[in-house]
Amino acid sequence: MPTEEAPAFLLASAHRRTSHVPVWFMRQAGRSLPEYRKLRGKGSILDVIRSPEIAAEMTLQPVRRYGVDAAILYSDIMVPPAAIGYGVEVTQGHGPYVPLPFRSPADLGRLRALEPEVDIPFVIEAVKHVAGELRHIGVPLIGFAGGPFTVASYLIEGGSSRDYTRTKSLMRSDPTVFAELLSRLGTLALDFLKAQVSAGAGAVQIFDSWAGILSTGEYKNHVLPSLTALMDGLASLRVPRIYFAVSASHLLDLVASSGCDVISIDWRMSLSAARKQLESRDMHQALQGNLDPTCCLAPWEVLEKEAIATLEEGQGIGHIFNLGHGVLPDTDPAMLERLVELIHSVPLDTLVDRTSDDQ
Amino acid sequence: MPTEEAPAFLLASAHRRTSHVPVWFMRQAGRSLPEYRKLRGKGSILDVIRSPEIAAEMTLQPVRRYGVDAAILYSDIMVPPAAIGYGVEVTQGHGPYVPLPFRSPADLGRLRALEPEVDIPFVIEAVKHVAGELRHIGVPLIGFAGGPFTVASYLIEGGSSRDYTRTKSLMRSDPTVFAELLSRLGTLALDFLKAQVSAGAGAVQIFDSWAGILSTGEYKNHVLPSLTALMDGLASLRVPRIYFAVSASHLLDLVASSGCDVISIDWRMSLSAARKQLESRDMHQALQGNLDPTCCLAPWEVLEKEAIATLEEGQGIGHIFNLGHGVLPDTDPAMLERLVELIHSVPLDTLVDRTSDDQ
Repeated sequence: MPTEEAPAFLLASAHRRTSHVPVWFMRQAGRSLPEYRKLRGKGSILDVIRSPEIAAEMTLQPVRRYGVDAAILYSDIMVPPAAIGYGVEVTQGHGPYVPLPFRSPADLGRLRALEPEVDIPFVIEAVKHVAGELRHIGVPLIGFAGGPFTVASYLIEGGSSRDYTRTKSLMRSDPTVFAELLSRLGTLALDFLKAQVSAGAGAVQIFDSWAGILSTGEYKNHVLPSLTALMDGLASLRVPRIYFAVSASHLLDLVASSGCDVISIDWRMSLSAARKQLESRDMHQALQGNLDPTCCLAPWEVLEKEAIATLEEGQGIGHIFNLGHGVLPDTDPAMLERLVELIHSVPLDTLVDRTSDDQ
Repeated sequence: MPTEEAPAFLLASAHRRTSHVPVWFMRQAGRSLPEYRKLRGKGSILDVIRSPEIAAEMTLQPVRRYGVDAAILYSDIMVPPAAIGYGVEVTQGHGPYVPLPFRSPADLGRLRALEPEVDIPFVIEAVKHVAGELRHIGVPLIGFAGGPFTVASYLIEGGSSRDYTRTKSLMRSDPTVFAELLSRLGTLALDFLKAQVSAGAGAVQIFDSWAGILSTGEYKNHVLPSLTALMDGLASLRVPRIYFAVSASHLLDLVASSGCDVISIDWRMSLSAARKQLESRDMHQALQGNLDPTCCLAPWEVLEKEAIATLEEGQGIGHIFNLGHGVLPDTDPAMLERLVELIHSVPLDTLVDRTSDDQ
C-alpha cells in the first residue's frame, strides 16, 4: 500500500509524515454523547460490554459524529479479570468494585488463563463488527487493556483508592507475590489484546492510568518487568503499542524503555519537553496527547488557542493529537466536532520544525 | 553563634553540614496523635486555631513525642481569607468550604489587606507561645501559608475539586483577573507570614499543594509571577523559605526559579534525580522530603529500608528528611518515633557523596 493511503493514525505512530496530524479522544465513546446516553441505560457497564451490537455501536458513534482518525473499542480495563470469574462489577460514576479483593498469595489461584473464545466472545464479535465497518473508511480500531499495575490496584484495593495503601503495602512487603500478580495480569492483558488484534484491531493502547502514583524506583523495580514482557509479547502482532499513564512525567524514560511505540502523556509536561528528553536518551517514540480536557469546557476562542499551542508543541511528525486524559462528561460534543475540524485544517508544513524535518 | 550550635534544620536549609540529617513531618500535628484527638473535639478547625493555647499545644505535641528538628504551627491555609471575612469554613475530613465562591471580578473587592493585630491576634499569640517554649530546646518553628494558586483554587471552586475546572476556566478566559486574584492572595500570604516571623517563627513553608495539576506553561505564565513576588517579599526576613507542591516533578525548574531556599518534593521523583536536575541548571536549593507516607503504615523492616534509601538519595548535605506528603491519619505514632530515632542515628559521613563533599 502506498504511504499516502495508509491511515494518518498509523503513519504518525510510526513517526512518518502525514497530510495532517491525526486526532482521537480518550473516552470519545461515552457520557458526553447524547446518542451514547440514549443507548446506555442504567445497568452495569460490564453488561453493556457483553452486548456486542451495543458495544460496537457505541464504538462507532464518535467516529461518525467527529470524524476522528481512530476508533477505540467501547470496553473496560476490568473486562479480563471479570471474564475469568474474579468477581468484578463496574458501575457508572463509581468505577470498579471487587467484593473479594486480592488479600493473600492464595488469591493468585483466582487468576486463570483467558480463553478468548469462551470468556470474551462478545469482545471478539464487537471488534469484528466495528473493524468491518471501519475498513470502508480507512479508520483503524484501537483495542485496549489496563496496565498490569492499574488492574492490580483495583483487585487489591477492592475499588478506587485515594492513597493506594494496600497496593503499595503488598508491593513493599511481598514483592515476589506482587511480581507474580503483575506477571499474571500482564499475560491476561496480552491474551486479551491478541484476541482483539486477531479480530481486526489495528493498534492497542495500555491504560496504566494510576502508575504515576509510584516513585521512579518503585516503577522500575515492580512495574516495568511485567510491562516490558507485555510489550515484547505484543511485538509480533506488528500494530502500534500505545502506553498511557496520568501524572507520570517522572516515569517518561522508563516508559520509553518498555518498548512501546507511542507514549500518551497528560497535559502536565509539554510535548516538546517530552520529545527533547526522549531524544537526549536516543529514544524516538511517537507522542500522543496532550490537551487538558478542561480546555474543552472553555469558550471556543480559548480552546482553539490551546489546541493550536498543543499542535505546535507536537511539531507535526510523530504526533497523535489527543487529550491528556479522558473527555469530561460535561463536554459539549459540538466543541469536539469543531476541534477535530481545526486539527484537520492545520497543514503539517506549518508545524514541522525545519531544522529536524525528516523529509 | 558557632556553626555547631545552630539548629540542624536551619543549617540544612542553608546547604551547610550538620551532625545528622534533620527531620520533621508534614501534618506531624494532627489526627494520628491520640493527644491531638483528645484536644481536638468535633468543632471547626478554624475555631481550634482561634484558641491560641490549644493551637500552641497541638504544635508542641509532636515535638515532645517525636523529638523532631522543627515544629510547624498548627494552622490552616484558609486562615488568612477567613480572617479578612471572605467566608470560609474548614471541616475535619472534608477540607475547606466557601459558600460564596469567587465568581466575578467584583469578588476581588472581598479581598482586603490583612491587619495582623486585628485579624489574626490568635495566630500571633500562638506563635509567641510556641517560639518561647521551643527557644529552650533550640528547635525552630516553621510558620506557613497556602500558595496563592492553591488558596485561589479553593476560593474559586468553593471547596475541594477533582478537575479544577472553574479555576482553570478563569485562568484561561480572564488571565488578568486571575493574575490580580493571585497577586492579592500572594500579598495576603506575605503579610500572614511576616506576622508569624515577627512573632518568632524561624522559617516559612508555602503549601501550594495542588499546583501540580497545571502544565509547565500555565504554571510559568499564571502562577510563577505571584509566587516570585511572594518569595521576594519574604527575602528580607532572612528565614528559610520552603515551597511544597504534590505531583509537581514537571515544575521543578520553575519552582527553583521562584527564589525559594528549600524545595519540598513528593515521593515520585527521587531526591538524587531532583538534585541532579537542579545542579544541571546551576541551581542549588536544599531539598526536603520525600518518603512516601504510606511507607509509615508498613512493617518496621519495610519502613526502615525505605527511610534509609531516602537518606542515601538525599546525600546528607542540604537535605531535610520529611514525608512526600502529610502523615496519614492511620499512622501509628510509634512508627514515627522510631523513624526519627533512625534518621538521627545515621552519621552524616555515611551519606555524603565523597566526590562532591563540600568540606
